Order: sequence, then C-alpha cells, then structure tokens
Amino acid sequence: MRAADVIERKRNGGEHTPEELEEFVLGYVRDEVTDYQMAAWCMAVYFNGLSGAETFALTDAMIRSGDTLDVGGALGRKVVDKHSTGGVGDKTSIAVGPIVAACGVPLGKMSGRGLGHTGGTLDKLESIPGFRVELSTDEMIEQLRTVGMAIVGQSDRLVPADKKLYALRDVTATVDIQPLIASSIMSKKLAAGADAIVLDVKVGDGAFMKSLDEARSLAQEMIELGRRAGREVTCLLTDMDQPLGSAVGNALEIREALDTVRGEGPADFTELVLDASARLLAYSDLDIDLTEGRHRAEAAVADGSAVAMYDRWIRAQGGDPDPSALPEAPVRVSVPAPRDGVVGRIGALAVGVAALELGAGRRTKTDPIDHAVGILCFAKRGDSVLAGDDLAEIHARDEASAAAGVQAVLDAYTITDEPPPTHGILLDVLS
Amino acid sequence: MRAADVIERKRNGGEHTPEELEEFVLGYVRDEVTDYQMAAWCMAVYFNGLSGAETFALTDAMIRSGDTLDVGGALGRKVVDKHSTGGVGDKTSIAVGPIVAACGVPLGKMSGRGLGHTGGTLDKLESIPGFRVELSTDEMIEQLRTVGMAIVGQSDRLVPADKKLYALRDVTATVDIQPLIASSIMSKKLAAGADAIVLDVKVGDGAFMKSLDEARSLAQEMIELGRRAGREVTCLLTDMDQPLGSAVGNALEIREALDTVRGEGPADFTELVLDASARLLAYSDLDIDLTEGRHRAEAAVADGSAVAMYDRWIRAQGGDPDPSALPEAPVRVSVPAPRDGVVGRIGALAVGVAALELGAGRRTKTDPIDHAVGILCFAKRGDSVLAGDDLAEIHARDEASAAAGVQAVLDAYTITDEPPPTHGILLDVLS
Repeated sequence: MRAADVIERKRNGGEHTPEELEEFVLGYVRDEVTDYQMAAWCMAVYFNGLSGAETFALTDAMIRSGDTLDVGGALGRKVVDKHSTGGVGDKTSIAVGPIVAACGVPLGKMSGRGLGHTGGTLDKLESIPGFRVELSTDEMIEQLRTVGMAIVGQSDRLVPADKKLYALRDVTATVDIQPLIASSIMSKKLAAGADAIVLDVKVGDGAFMKSLDEARSLAQEMIELGRRAGREVTCLLTDMDQPLGSAVGNALEIREALDTVRGEGPADFTELVLDASARLLAYSDLDIDLTEGRHRAEAAVADGSAVAMYDRWIRAQGGDPDPSALPEAPVRVSVPAPRDGVVGRIGALAVGVAALELGAGRRTKTDPIDHAVGILCFAKRGDSVLAGDDLAEIHARDEASAAAGVQAVLDAYTITDEPPPTHGILLDVLS
Repeated sequence: MRAADVIERKRNGGEHTPEELEEFVLGYVRDEVTDYQMAAWCMAVYFNGLSGAETFALTDAMIRSGDTLDVGGALGRKVVDKHSTGGVGDKTSIAVGPIVAACGVPLGKMSGRGLGHTGGTLDKLESIPGFRVELSTDEMIEQLRTVGMAIVGQSDRLVPADKKLYALRDVTATVDIQPLIASSIMSKKLAAGADAIVLDVKVGDGAFMKSLDEARSLAQEMIELGRRAGREVTCLLTDMDQPLGSAVGNALEIREALDTVRGEGPADFTELVLDASARLLAYSDLDIDLTEGRHRAEAAVADGSAVAMYDRWIRAQGGDPDPSALPEAPVRVSVPAPRDGVVGRIGALAVGVAALELGAGRRTKTDPIDHAVGILCFAKRGDSVLAGDDLAEIHARDEASAAAGVQAVLDAYTITDEPPPTHGILLDVLS
C-alpha cells in the first residue's frame, strides 16, 4: 500500500477494501502513514464520503489499533452502555448510572473531558473532592462487581487511533464528517465491550448536529455499525436547542444530577434520565420490557435506592458524596427578565460559551478548569416571566466575569409575547 | 488567522482574501501552519478550486516567501524566459537558448531536475563533463553579460514555499490540481524576473495534461496570472503523445540538442525549437515581429552562430562542448519492427518509463542517474517501416537491462496498416 494511492482512490470517488483501510489506519498509528496524509484523506472523505462497508472497516481498524475489553465475560453479565454526543448541561450519565445500577444492572462507563462549549463527564466528576477518575481496567471491573457502577477515564490503550485522529481532525477542519464521527463514537463503545448501547444524539443549537435530519442520519449510521458488529443500539434524538436541565458548570451539574437521582430534578432532565434508564434496563439481562424498565427506574428514585447507589459509587472512587462538600463560587448574581413575557428561546450554544468564559470549560486541551463557576437557568423555554424575575443565576469567580456572564446570558434569552411551540426533550427514537 | 478556519472556508466553498492566503502561505514556510493543515487545504482546493483572484494571491504569496531577482535591471535589458511543463525527450531549452542568445537576446534560465518518467534539464546538462549548474545569481548575471546565456539550478532562496509545497503535494495525492500547478510554475518564472514568458504546455500520454482541453485551461490560467502581474505570456500547446525528437536519456538528448542547434535535428523537435525561439525574439527588446524572429532564428542555425554560442555557453559553465566527450553506454541493441506497416503510436509515457528503468531517471529524489543510457526512437508516428527495420535503439548499462528495454520499447510501439491522422508538433498557441 502506498498512502498516496489510498488518498487518491478516495479523492477520485473510489471505494477502499477493508484490508486497505486497516493497513492505512494501523499504519497511521505506527507513524508510517503521516499526519499530512491522514489529513488529506479525511478531507477527501468530507467530499466523497464512506460507504457503510467502509465505515465499518474503518471502525474495525480503529478498534484493532488497541486493546479491547471483555467486561461482560469478567462479570458473567450482559453489558449495557450509554453515550451522549455532547451538549450544554449534559450530566445524564451521572444520574442514569446510579438508577440503573440500583436496579441490579452494572454500568461501567469510560468517559471523556470537555472541549469548547460542551462539558465533559470526567471534569464534572472531578469537582467532587477526592474523586478519582484514573482507575485501571481491573479496578473498574472489581468496582462493578462490588458496587455495581463506575465512571472512569478512557484507557490510553483503547482505540489509540481515535485519539490521534481526533486531535488531527480538530485542527484540519475535518471534525464534522458523519462517517468519521460515527466510527469515532462506535469504535470506543465496541472496544469497551458493550453488548447493547443507548446513544443520546443531541440535536440543536448547542449540539454538534444542528438539525433533526442530520441527527437521524448519524443515528442510522451508528445503528448500522452496531448491527454489523452484532450489538444492539438505540438512538435517542434529544433537544439541545436549550441547555439540558438548569445547571451548566461542573459542581452545579453534580448537584443537579444528585437532585435528579433523589427525584427533585428539573422536568426535562428527569424525563431524559428516566427514559434512558428504562431503555438500558430493557436491554439488560433482567429480561424486562421498556414499561417495566420505566417502573423500576422510577421506583429506584422514589425508594432512595438510587441515591444510596450514588453514595456508594462516589465513595468507592474516593469522593465525598455530600453536596455541601462541592466547591462554591464566591460571587452569585441574578439575571433579571428585562420585560414581561414568555421565554421563546435560550441559545444553548451562547449559554455554553458563557459558562466557558466564566472558567467552567477549556478552550485548549491544557486549560485549567474552575469547577465552582457556571450558570443556573431557572426559566426554560415556554415559561412565563415578569420583568425583574430571575431568569438565571451566574456563579462566578469575581465581579467582572459575573457582569460579563449576566450580559451573555441575557443575550442568550429571547422573551416573546406568544408562547413558542412546545415539545418534549425526546424528539425521536431510532433503533 | 486560525489555520483551521482558512481550511474550513475553502472546504465550504468560500473565497479567501489575498491577506488571508498570504498569511496562510507565509505561515506555512515559517512552520506555523503545519504540513497536515496545508495538505487538508490542498485537498479542499482539489474539490472547490481557487478563483482567478485567489490563484493570483497564492502565486504572489509564494513569490513573497523568498527572494526575487531583477535580471533585467542588472542587464538593462528586457528579460525573456521559457518553460516547459515537462515531457519525454524534452531538451528544448538546451537548443533554444543558444539560438536566441546568438540573435543578441540574453537568456538566463533556472531549471529543475527530473522525477519519474520526465527528465530534468539540469540532469541532462550534467552529462556534459565538467558542466557546473550551481552558479550563484551574481555569476549567472555576469555570464549573461559576457556570454549571453546561462542555465543554472534554481536558487533555494527563490520561492521556498513552492519547494516545500511541491514535496507535500507529491505524497498527498494533490499534485494534479490546476491552480496549484499554475501558481507553482508562474511563481518561479515571476520571481526570477521574466518580463515575457513562453510556456510550452505539453499535451498527451507522456505529459501531465492528458487532453487538449485540460492543457488549454491550464494555459489560460497561467496567461491570466501573467496578465495580473503585468507580464506577457504565450503558451504553446505541444504534442507529447510521442517522445519529442528521437533521443530520450541525458547524454543522448544533449547530442540531439546540439545536432538541432547545428540544423541537423529531427523534424518535430527542430520545428518546436525554431517556433519557441522566434516567439522569444519577437517578445524581446529587438523590436521585431514573429516572422522576422523566425528568419533570425533560422539564420543563426544556418550560419553557425548558434552552435558557436552553444560552445561558448558550455565552456563558460566549465563543460566540454565536444559531443565526443559525452559518456556512452557500453551496450547498444536495436529494436526491430515486428512487421511491415506504419507507426500508429509510440506511447511517450511507456518510453519515458523504459528510459527510467534503464537508469536515465530517478524514482525518488535521491536516486543516482546514469547519464549515458537511454533510447533513440528512429521511427516516429506516421513513418512506414518494414519488418526488421530499426524502430529504435537501446543504450544500456548491461545486456539484461538492454533486453528489458527492447521489450518495453517494442510494447510502446503500435504498428498498423493504415497511417494515423497526422498533425504538427504545435497543437495550439494561446496568449
């Protein structure tokens, strides 16, 4: 294989054999195929796409670039996993995990860090004093056995091709390419050994997929990759045209996730958490249907077994589960409604960027994070407000950044006279 | 400027400002824009092209990446230059230079080396014992003043962006992109200070441009770049569906160029040399038209002033102009016609590759060259032959490579019953 020939074939609209793609991807991990060759190929894929067979071969080659896990074999259980494509205020796994585990289904998840306006689950968990995300695979499996759940950082030995490729795509304008997104997500889920996967594909202003059509197309591609690999995949297409729940910012989101596990969370977030939990339970080896899954998830919240699982999980990873231990920002400022009316829109991207500016996220991979800062969006789309009501609250490091945050969040809200068309958090479900 | 934004703009079909392109190209030379970013951009250009204004801005930025020459200012003369896009058996500059210089028009040319099936003028000249191609710019100008002509290696300080970009394009399947080809050629000609340029755009099997339409399009783009830069440009579109002249291989081509300067060259090559010489003379400060240019070129060949200039030029650069000093291959083997008929076709690419296999060229930039070996194609398209006639002659290092050469050249020839449609070497002229 000459790398230039592989690039030229895709450039000219040709189709790769699985063998050729494997050689190209594994060559890339071994530095035999260079970054500039891979970048040229990714750009050719932007224009000429990949067939379903090529996308599967790419995913398979990425998996072969590193180790694979067999958590199910180690536990003697069917393994379910969930993943979100990322949005603003997305703390879903932190609430879903304890609910599902409380129902007797182990959930071990490898998560990532945030970049840009979307937060990362690991960053959120690290706002809990003492919490360790760097568990070995053996430690994770042991914790699944003794506690029932774990959320850990992704092993460097799992899908190293994806790590290298993602860093390259980020700086070569080749991020938003559907087959590359699909293979990136699915390679990690498949390598981690999930038998059944619930994918939360975010749609809207604050998400990667801006339209329902794009999201459906990505979802279908990932379901197809799962089918080819012999795994069950369900995609929830969920609303990211406004922040999820109220809280945006690391410690604030942990608090909200815990509230939701206790049954005291915001309506939209609670609905998503219960629906995803129900689907994971229905996929599990409990042999129950979706309706029964929903009953059990609601019961685990209502009877306190979910919050008890949250406590045991956080302690198992060295953290203090008491929310009063979470860091708090020194400055809190209200964002008052400028007029009477109805919330027509809250720009999720704008709120995400405002939280980033407050210090809750990173612009580059090495930026430090301020876990205490963030935004609470009290008023959500469709809510009626009176002039002066608290639309939101800024949690900031200092007065200057708080003032900037107030302005940014005010700009993100649109107050109208007519209520906007309403819909639930769940826009569609594909499987 | 963020490099990823520049790439994304082109990827999305947008247009760059001249400032943005300059920053991108100069950033590339300074290693601030990486190879992988430039490779992704080149691939985006493959799909979305560059406008005339963008191509000019790119060319201008490439020129600004290094030094520029003012040969005309140093000599107090209008400077004319010629360039060929490269083919098989193309020794045109080596014959044109002495003819034009003998007519009183100084011709200083910076040339390149060959790669793949096309030869390079510098490699050909280096088959002359003692010949030095590495002259400084001052030495070149002094030689133009005292002798009237010089062909030297391109200065590393002239258009360094092109050197770096070309090496990258070669390994990322981004070579055959018209605006990048046009800006590569024209940036070097413009930086070298030519006021008027005759471009020999080769068309056919052995050339980069396979069809007349492609060649016309490239020619128009280069003429437009010249117009924007205030320079006169004429493009000759010439036949490369068979090797140019008879000789393919370094010392063999020097011999043929010298024969042609003496008026004893092959018909097709002689026609091209006289036409290009006439156009350069008509472009010069002699204030003559094309007809008079042709008369003077023919006269310089006929009266021996051209061959006298060849002698002075070769000696000035340290070489021995006597053709008997040229290296000769130890093994010579004929390629006999397999049947009676007419030469319908000689695959120029196949002959070029056969010469490369004999050792006349390089596959990679560091391969050594055997200056003595090559191929003489006696029978050209449209010639009648009898079975056993010499179609060609292989000049080889040893018997084994000679035998392979005979077979390869035999395969390159098609002998038919009906004569093929004939046309001259000059397919079209654009200006």
